[in-house]
Amino acid sequence: MEIHQQLAQDCYQILKTKNIQVLLHRNASVPWFILVPLSDSVEYLEVFELPHGQRADLNWLSDCLSQYLIESFQVEKINVAAIGNLVPQLHIHVVGRKSGDPCWPNPVWGNLSEFAEYSDQEIEKIHSDITELVSL
Amino acid sequence: MEIHQQLAQDCYQILKTKNIQVLLHRNASVPWFILVPLSDSVEYLEVFELPHGQRADLNWLSDCLSQYLIESFQVEKINVAAIGNLVPQLHIHVVGRKSGDPCWPNPVWGNLSEFAEYSDQEIEKIHSDITELVSL
Repeated sequence: MEIHQQLAQDCYQILKTKNIQVLLHRNASVPWFILVPLSDSVEYLEVFELPHGQRADLNWLSDCLSQYLIESFQVEKINVAAIGNLVPQLHIHVVGRKSGDPCWPNPVWGNLSEFAEYSDQEIEKIHSDITELVSL
Repeated sequence: MEIHQQLAQDCYQILKTKNIQVLLHRNASVPWFILVPLSDSVEYLEVFELPHGQRADLNWLSDCLSQYLIESFQVEKINVAAIGNLVPQLHIHVVGRKSGDPCWPNPVWGNLSEFAEYSDQEIEKIHSDITELVSL
Protein backbone atom coordinates (compact mmCIF):
# COMPACT_ATOMS: atom_id res chain seq x y z
CA MET A 1 0.00 0.00 0.00
CA GLU A 2 1.38 3.35 -1.05
CA ILE A 3 1.28 6.65 0.79
CA HIS A 4 -0.79 9.22 -1.13
CA GLN A 5 1.39 11.39 -3.35
CA GLN A 6 0.45 14.61 -1.55
CA LEU A 7 1.39 13.21 1.86
CA ALA A 8 4.63 11.76 0.48
CA GLN A 9 5.48 15.16 -0.96
CA ASP A 10 4.60 17.16 2.18
CA CYS A 11 6.23 14.87 4.74
CA TYR A 12 9.27 12.94 5.87
CA GLN A 13 8.60 9.24 6.36
CA ILE A 14 9.85 8.66 9.90
CA LEU A 15 9.04 5.00 10.46
CA LYS A 16 6.39 2.33 10.24
CA THR A 17 5.13 0.59 13.38
CA LYS A 18 2.15 -1.70 14.02
CA ASN A 19 1.11 -1.19 10.40
CA ILE A 20 0.88 2.57 10.83
CA GLN A 21 3.15 4.91 8.88
CA VAL A 22 4.43 7.84 10.94
CA LEU A 23 5.05 10.97 8.88
CA LEU A 24 6.52 14.30 9.94
CA HIS A 25 5.32 17.36 8.06
CA ARG A 26 8.26 19.11 6.36
CA ASN A 27 7.12 22.48 7.67
CA ALA A 28 9.08 22.89 10.89
CA SER A 29 7.29 26.11 11.83
CA VAL A 30 4.77 23.94 13.74
CA PRO A 31 5.67 20.39 14.92
CA TRP A 32 3.24 18.18 13.06
CA PHE A 33 2.98 14.40 12.73
CA ILE A 34 0.65 12.55 10.39
CA LEU A 35 -0.35 8.92 10.94
CA VAL A 36 -1.46 6.69 8.06
CA PRO A 37 -3.03 3.34 9.04
CA LEU A 38 -1.99 0.80 6.41
CA SER A 39 -3.64 -2.35 5.17
CA ASP A 40 -2.74 -4.99 2.59
CA SER A 41 -6.26 -5.21 1.28
CA VAL A 42 -8.23 -2.00 1.68
CA GLU A 43 -7.65 1.71 1.70
CA TYR A 44 -9.29 3.21 4.78
CA LEU A 45 -11.25 6.38 4.22
CA GLU A 46 -12.83 7.01 7.62
CA VAL A 47 -11.71 6.43 11.20
CA PHE A 48 -14.79 4.29 11.96
CA GLU A 49 -13.77 1.81 9.25
CA LEU A 50 -10.60 0.80 11.07
CA PRO A 51 -10.48 -2.69 12.58
CA HIS A 52 -10.61 -2.65 16.39
CA GLY A 53 -6.94 -3.58 16.86
CA GLN A 54 -5.63 -0.99 14.45
CA ARG A 55 -7.84 1.66 16.01
CA ALA A 56 -6.31 0.86 19.39
CA ASP A 57 -2.80 1.03 17.91
CA LEU A 58 -3.65 4.36 16.30
CA ASN A 59 -4.88 5.77 19.61
CA TRP A 60 -1.77 4.52 21.37
CA LEU A 61 0.55 6.04 18.78
CA SER A 62 -1.36 9.31 18.70
CA ASP A 63 -1.09 9.50 22.50
CA CYS A 64 2.66 8.75 22.43
CA LEU A 65 3.25 11.48 19.87
CA SER A 66 1.03 13.94 21.74
CA GLN A 67 3.07 13.52 24.89
CA TYR A 68 6.31 13.66 22.89
CA LEU A 69 5.24 16.98 21.37
CA ILE A 70 4.47 18.39 24.81
CA GLU A 71 7.74 17.19 26.33
CA SER A 72 10.14 17.82 23.46
CA PHE A 73 8.64 20.81 21.69
CA GLN A 74 7.13 22.55 24.73
CA VAL A 75 3.75 22.87 23.04
CA GLU A 76 0.70 23.79 25.12
CA LYS A 77 -2.04 22.14 23.13
CA ILE A 78 -2.49 19.10 20.89
CA ASN A 79 -4.69 19.25 17.80
CA VAL A 80 -5.72 15.77 16.65
CA ALA A 81 -7.77 15.49 13.50
CA ALA A 82 -8.86 13.26 10.65
CA ILE A 83 -10.04 15.58 7.89
CA GLY A 84 -9.16 14.28 4.43
CA ASN A 85 -11.37 16.52 2.32
CA LEU A 86 -8.50 16.88 -0.16
CA VAL A 87 -6.48 13.67 0.39
CA PRO A 88 -8.92 10.76 0.65
CA GLN A 89 -6.46 8.22 2.12
CA LEU A 90 -7.18 8.10 5.86
CA HIS A 91 -4.56 10.09 7.76
CA ILE A 92 -4.60 11.55 11.26
CA HIS A 93 -2.91 14.82 12.09
CA VAL A 94 -1.23 15.17 15.50
CA VAL A 95 -0.11 18.77 15.77
CA GLY A 96 1.63 20.54 18.64
CA ARG A 97 0.44 24.09 19.15
CA LYS A 98 1.40 27.00 21.37
CA SER A 99 0.47 30.64 21.68
CA GLY A 100 2.75 32.66 19.46
CA ASP A 101 3.27 29.93 16.85
CA PRO A 102 2.84 31.18 13.26
CA CYS A 103 -0.92 30.66 13.05
CA TRP A 104 -2.06 30.46 16.68
CA PRO A 105 -4.94 30.13 17.60
CA ASN A 106 -6.20 29.15 14.14
CA PRO A 107 -6.02 25.52 13.03
CA VAL A 108 -2.98 24.81 10.85
CA TRP A 109 -5.00 23.59 7.86
CA GLY A 110 -5.14 26.39 5.32
CA ASN A 111 -3.73 28.94 7.77
CA LEU A 112 -0.02 28.15 8.00
CA SER A 113 1.69 30.46 5.51
CA GLU A 114 5.10 30.55 7.22
CA PHE A 115 7.62 27.84 6.30
CA ALA A 116 10.70 26.65 8.16
CA GLU A 117 13.00 23.77 7.31
CA TYR A 118 14.20 21.04 9.70
CA SER A 119 17.97 20.57 9.76
CA ASP A 120 19.33 17.08 9.07
CA GLN A 121 20.29 16.86 12.75
CA GLU A 122 16.75 17.69 13.86
CA ILE A 123 15.28 15.05 11.55
CA GLU A 124 17.79 12.50 12.85
CA LYS A 125 16.92 13.39 16.45
CA ILE A 126 13.18 13.06 15.86
CA HIS A 127 13.70 9.76 14.04
CA SER A 128 15.77 8.41 16.89
CA ASP A 129 13.33 9.70 19.57
CA ILE A 130 10.30 8.17 17.86
CA THR A 131 12.10 4.88 17.27
CA GLU A 132 12.81 4.70 20.99
CA LEU A 133 9.30 5.81 21.89
CA VAL A 134 7.53 3.10 19.91
CA SER A 135 9.87 0.39 21.14
CA LEU A 136 9.00 1.01 24.81
CA MET B 1 -19.32 19.84 35.50
CA GLU B 2 -20.45 22.64 33.23
CA ILE B 3 -20.24 22.92 29.49
CA HIS B 4 -17.95 25.79 28.46
CA GLN B 5 -19.90 28.98 27.80
CA GLN B 6 -18.83 29.20 24.15
CA LEU B 7 -19.97 25.63 23.42
CA ALA B 8 -23.24 26.19 25.28
CA GLN B 9 -23.83 29.30 23.22
CA ASP B 10 -22.95 27.73 19.83
CA CYS B 11 -24.78 24.43 20.29
CA TYR B 12 -27.99 22.62 21.18
CA GLN B 13 -27.55 20.13 24.00
CA ILE B 14 -28.95 16.94 22.49
CA LEU B 15 -28.38 14.40 25.25
CA LYS B 16 -25.90 12.97 27.70
CA THR B 17 -24.85 9.32 27.46
CA LYS B 18 -22.01 7.35 29.10
CA ASN B 19 -20.84 10.58 30.71
CA ILE B 20 -20.39 12.29 27.35
CA GLN B 21 -22.45 15.34 26.40
CA VAL B 22 -23.63 15.30 22.79
CA LEU B 23 -23.99 18.78 21.31
CA LEU B 24 -25.30 19.80 17.89
CA HIS B 25 -23.84 22.98 16.41
CA ARG B 26 -26.62 25.54 15.80
CA ASN B 27 -25.33 26.24 12.31
CA ALA B 28 -27.35 23.89 10.12
CA SER B 29 -25.40 24.78 6.98
CA VAL B 30 -23.09 21.83 7.81
CA PRO B 31 -24.24 18.95 10.09
CA TRP B 32 -21.88 19.15 13.04
CA PHE B 33 -21.85 17.33 16.37
CA ILE B 34 -19.56 18.12 19.28
CA LEU B 35 -18.79 15.60 22.03
CA VAL B 36 -17.74 16.71 25.51
CA PRO B 37 -16.40 13.97 27.82
CA LEU B 38 -17.51 14.80 31.36
CA SER B 39 -16.01 14.03 34.72
CA ASP B 40 -16.96 14.79 38.31
CA SER B 41 -13.42 15.54 39.33
CA VAL B 42 -11.29 16.85 36.48
CA GLU B 43 -11.65 18.91 33.35
CA TYR B 44 -10.03 17.06 30.48
CA LEU B 45 -7.86 19.16 28.20
CA GLU B 46 -6.36 16.57 25.86
CA VAL B 47 -7.63 13.33 24.34
CA PHE B 48 -4.71 11.34 25.80
CA GLU B 49 -5.79 12.30 29.33
CA LEU B 50 -9.07 10.41 29.06
CA PRO B 51 -9.44 7.24 31.13
CA HIS B 52 -9.44 4.08 29.00
CA GLY B 53 -13.15 3.39 29.38
CA GLN B 54 -14.23 6.90 28.53
CA ARG B 55 -11.92 6.94 25.52
CA ALA B 56 -13.61 3.77 24.27
CA ASP B 57 -17.04 5.31 24.84
CA LEU B 58 -15.94 8.42 22.98
CA ASN B 59 -14.74 6.36 20.00
CA TRP B 60 -17.99 4.39 19.98
CA LEU B 61 -20.12 7.53 20.08
CA SER B 62 -18.01 9.29 17.46
CA ASP B 63 -18.40 6.25 15.18
CA CYS B 64 -22.18 6.11 15.75
CA LEU B 65 -22.52 9.78 14.86
CA SER B 66 -20.21 9.45 11.85
CA GLN B 67 -22.39 6.72 10.40
CA TYR B 68 -25.55 8.64 11.27
CA LEU B 69 -24.23 11.68 9.39
CA ILE B 70 -23.49 9.54 6.31
CA GLU B 71 -26.87 7.81 6.38
CA SER B 72 -29.14 10.69 7.38
CA PHE B 73 -27.39 13.71 5.90
CA GLN B 74 -25.88 12.05 2.83
CA VAL B 75 -22.45 13.43 3.60
CA GLU B 76 -19.41 12.02 1.79
CA LYS B 77 -16.72 12.62 4.35
CA ILE B 78 -16.37 12.78 8.12
CA ASN B 79 -14.07 15.30 9.78
CA VAL B 80 -13.22 14.28 13.35
CA ALA B 81 -11.09 16.64 15.39
CA ALA B 82 -10.03 17.72 18.85
CA ILE B 83 -8.63 21.22 18.48
CA GLY B 84 -9.46 23.44 21.44
CA ASN B 85 -7.06 26.30 20.81
CA LEU B 86 -9.83 28.73 21.79
CA VAL B 87 -12.05 26.62 24.09
CA PRO B 88 -9.80 24.66 26.46
CA GLN B 89 -12.45 22.20 27.67
CA LEU B 90 -11.87 18.97 25.74
CA HIS B 91 -14.42 18.64 22.94
CA ILE B 92 -14.41 16.52 19.81
CA HIS B 93 -15.93 17.74 16.57
CA VAL B 94 -17.69 15.20 14.35
CA VAL B 95 -18.61 17.01 11.16
CA GLY B 96 -20.33 15.70 8.04
CA ARG B 97 -18.95 17.15 4.84
CA LYS B 98 -19.79 16.95 1.17
CA SER B 99 -18.65 18.63 -2.01
CA GLY B 100 -20.72 21.73 -2.55
CA ASP B 101 -21.33 22.44 1.15
CA PRO B 102 -20.70 26.09 2.12
CA CYS B 103 -16.97 25.75 2.79
CA TRP B 104 -15.97 22.55 0.97
CA PRO B 105 -13.15 21.43 0.82
CA ASN B 106 -11.85 23.68 3.61
CA PRO B 107 -12.21 22.64 7.24
CA VAL B 108 -15.21 24.27 8.93
CA TRP B 109 -13.15 25.95 11.67
CA GLY B 110 -12.77 29.59 10.74
CA ASN B 111 -14.11 29.04 7.22
CA LEU B 112 -17.87 28.65 7.63
CA SER B 113 -19.35 32.07 7.03
CA GLU B 114 -22.79 30.90 5.90
CA PHE B 115 -25.44 30.33 8.57
CA ALA B 116 -28.64 28.33 8.44
CA GLU B 117 -31.10 27.58 11.24
CA TYR B 118 -32.53 24.17 12.15
CA SER B 119 -36.32 24.09 12.39
CA ASP B 120 -37.89 22.83 15.62
CA GLN B 121 -38.97 19.70 13.73
CA GLU B 122 -35.41 19.01 12.54
CA ILE B 123 -34.03 19.39 16.07
CA GLU B 124 -36.73 17.07 17.39
CA LYS B 125 -35.94 14.49 14.70
CA ILE B 126 -32.20 14.59 15.42
CA HIS B 127 -32.85 14.32 19.15
CA SER B 128 -35.10 11.32 18.65
CA ASP B 129 -32.69 9.66 16.17
CA ILE B 130 -29.70 10.06 18.49
CA THR B 131 -31.66 8.85 21.50
CA GLU B 132 -32.52 5.69 19.57
CA LEU B 133 -28.97 5.34 18.25
CA VAL B 134 -27.30 5.39 21.67
CA SER B 135 -29.84 3.00 23.18
CA LEU B 136 -29.05 0.25 20.64
